[in-house]
Amino acid sequence: MVPVATGAAVLPDHSIVVRDGLIHAIEARELARHNNPEAVRVDLTGQAVIPGLINAHTHAAMTLLRGFADDLVLTEWLEQRIWPAEAEHVSAEFVADGTSIACAEMLSGGTTAFNDMYFYAASAIQAATDAGIRIGCGLTYLNAPTSYAKTEDEYIDRGLDAVDTWQGTPLVTFAWAPHSTYAASPASWGRLAKLRDDHPFPVHVHVQETATEVEHEVEAHGLTPIARIHRAGLLHGPFAGVHAVHLRGGDIPLLVEGNASVVHCPSSNMKLASGMSPVTQLLRADVNVGLGTDGAASNNRLDMWQEMRTAALLAKIQTGDPAALTAEQALTMATIGSARSMGIDEFTGSIEVGKAADLVAVDLSGVASQPVYDPISHLVYVAGRDDVTNVWVAGRRVLDNRKLVFIDIERVKAQAHQWHQRIKA
Amino acid sequence: MVPVATGAAVLPDHSIVVRDGLIHAIEARELARHNNPEAVRVDLTGQAVIPGLINAHTHAAMTLLRGFADDLVLTEWLEQRIWPAEAEHVSAEFVADGTSIACAEMLSGGTTAFNDMYFYAASAIQAATDAGIRIGCGLTYLNAPTSYAKTEDEYIDRGLDAVDTWQGTPLVTFAWAPHSTYAASPASWGRLAKLRDDHPFPVHVHVQETATEVEHEVEAHGLTPIARIHRAGLLHGPFAGVHAVHLRGGDIPLLVEGNASVVHCPSSNMKLASGMSPVTQLLRADVNVGLGTDGAASNNRLDMWQEMRTAALLAKIQTGDPAALTAEQALTMATIGSARSMGIDEFTGSIEVGKAADLVAVDLSGVASQPVYDPISHLVYVAGRDDVTNVWVAGRRVLDNRKLVFIDIERVKAQAHQWHQRIKA
Repeated sequence: MVPVATGAAVLPDHSIVVRDGLIHAIEARELARHNNPEAVRVDLTGQAVIPGLINAHTHAAMTLLRGFADDLVLTEWLEQRIWPAEAEHVSAEFVADGTSIACAEMLSGGTTAFNDMYFYAASAIQAATDAGIRIGCGLTYLNAPTSYAKTEDEYIDRGLDAVDTWQGTPLVTFAWAPHSTYAASPASWGRLAKLRDDHPFPVHVHVQETATEVEHEVEAHGLTPIARIHRAGLLHGPFAGVHAVHLRGGDIPLLVEGNASVVHCPSSNMKLASGMSPVTQLLRADVNVGLGTDGAASNNRLDMWQEMRTAALLAKIQTGDPAALTAEQALTMATIGSARSMGIDEFTGSIEVGKAADLVAVDLSGVASQPVYDPISHLVYVAGRDDVTNVWVAGRRVLDNRKLVFIDIERVKAQAHQWHQRIKA
Repeated sequence: MVPVATGAAVLPDHSIVVRDGLIHAIEARELARHNNPEAVRVDLTGQAVIPGLINAHTHAAMTLLRGFADDLVLTEWLEQRIWPAEAEHVSAEFVADGTSIACAEMLSGGTTAFNDMYFYAASAIQAATDAGIRIGCGLTYLNAPTSYAKTEDEYIDRGLDAVDTWQGTPLVTFAWAPHSTYAASPASWGRLAKLRDDHPFPVHVHVQETATEVEHEVEAHGLTPIARIHRAGLLHGPFAGVHAVHLRGGDIPLLVEGNASVVHCPSSNMKLASGMSPVTQLLRADVNVGLGTDGAASNNRLDMWQEMRTAALLAKIQTGDPAALTAEQALTMATIGSARSMGIDEFTGSIEVGKAADLVAVDLSGVASQPVYDPISHLVYVAGRDDVTNVWVAGRRVLDNRKLVFIDIERVKAQAHQWHQRIKA
């Protein structure tokens, strides 16, 4: 077992006792058996048990645009392909169906929670809770009309409707999710700061993804996006600043001061050629870093294993230091680091007594994993989502011997096929 | 079907007719059925058929050191961990068992040929031919003693013994494999040039992997490694220069002049923080580029899917251009590009009538692959080795519905376990 709790080592031959959805005890196997004679036992010999992986940034419903437009320059990709397709097709049904695909993909790959930034919050929440995965539902807004809302106020009001309906529901948390400083009006930040007093949700926002964005923002406002958010009084934890690729001198001290998190999306940053986030520098400054896949239009896998491996490899080439961003650091980012960025670390992100039983069993006994010298190294550099066998969220088994329990795969695939026909037309 | 032959598009609803291990015809499904009423049919609906992937650089037996030493600086990794472990353990048995693990891993992930550089050629060839995979067996030598040989001449003589025994055997080709210019004596290059007249095998050699290597070589010899090899009369095709990360002005023209190939190993270059090979520049100059995993001590997956995706993503971040190294280019590198680098492109590397039936079926019908707009994009950015269902090498099915036909997995795993116990002690 790999608890990923502060100071906790790998625990071979241990059992996790789960009661009422929570981790009740962590004990040597024989002791656990002795202490809990009535318990239902799941034998996971040859497997590693890790905390559920947490995808700290995605646009789940965009699975419907997976591979729709690849290998294009950014403006062409966004302005000529993705935005027009979204304008034509995004609806409550699109979000419900696209999020269901995403949940199927993420759960079967060991992701037990995701931080979502998209439209039609109610549809996304319904799909996630039906699937049995945790959702950090973004109350998304931007300064441009979509089928979901016409004005920033309308976006926010639709988000607050979802809060009224779903707050307190198991598996559901919320985040304020302005798209970015450049796509939200200055006035909206004032409203957000006030709203956050009543609804102290985490903030989830794209920041400083491209060099152009930072240049334009500094030119227009005399401040970087991070500094603007700080001035608006919103840069304090839990705060998830997504991408944070192009940072300037003053940005890191502000992140530290606010106890704010950065969410690293290495595959997306590479695929869109955005640049490399200075992750090792952030970690050295004690900034919490979570890990995310971004949406399936820019990755194209919602696969946290791929992100762990890519994060570790990218940091090494970036710094010229093969010891940079160790396997342990990558695993920490993908679990407790992501949980902190979403403000859910009190109850998930590590295997600790009292936390929710969000657990993933990973088979390290396959021939392609042999031999195993160091399980943590193998989890990052060798294992993949296809090695995940069983997943529990809040103690409920949602993946049972590689079979999703609460998702009708054939129905989801049929829906994907219908959207494919409609969108490619 | 994705033929990866020059000018060939994706062919939906086509069949490949195989006879005597060769591709006899490529026809629309109904026509193929009509023309070959007696043929045994394999239904691959929902799957893509691609040419077998070709791993153009690995040290197969090093699977036994998979994850043995990660996240270390290069000198510590090599000098304090890998070399001492090799000195203590490498033997004919080590190579046989380690190569078997590698073959199991590669075949089940759709790799049908590999270019190997290691010791105990006979053991490696035996393991590969038993498994049913093609091996480009390196006649490896270096200017340092191992248990395999004490002098360069002895290494070469042992290699020539293997040639005598195995030349002409199905699935087996050879390559001259000096480790590198810095680890082979100047005199050995002269012998090699002469030997190559009688045995015109391809050359397989590490070149210009690190900045330090190039600096030292230029300082000592006034020439880059590529220029030294050119001067020795060995830089002409088929020639596989592995890594080629740190190139100087004159290197690319020499590669072009010799019609020499570069083998790109993006994961290894990232993990060891060696640098980024200028792959897009090489392709623009019409240098053939193959793709390799390197050994499992520096990757740690012998997974060509991972390398295709990583190559495409790395080129984008390296050049700042998201259109750099498209999915199609990555797939080309991993198939016909690798085949050219090994001198086996006349009979494999693409799906063309008359070539060997080295074929891989990839299931794109899984929920994590939905929807499919562009199969080639999905092969590189979405699919993984776990999507491979069936593999044929020279028309013989070696992976049958995800089950290896000629490898006893339990035996191979037991051997891996024994080596693990011995090596970690």
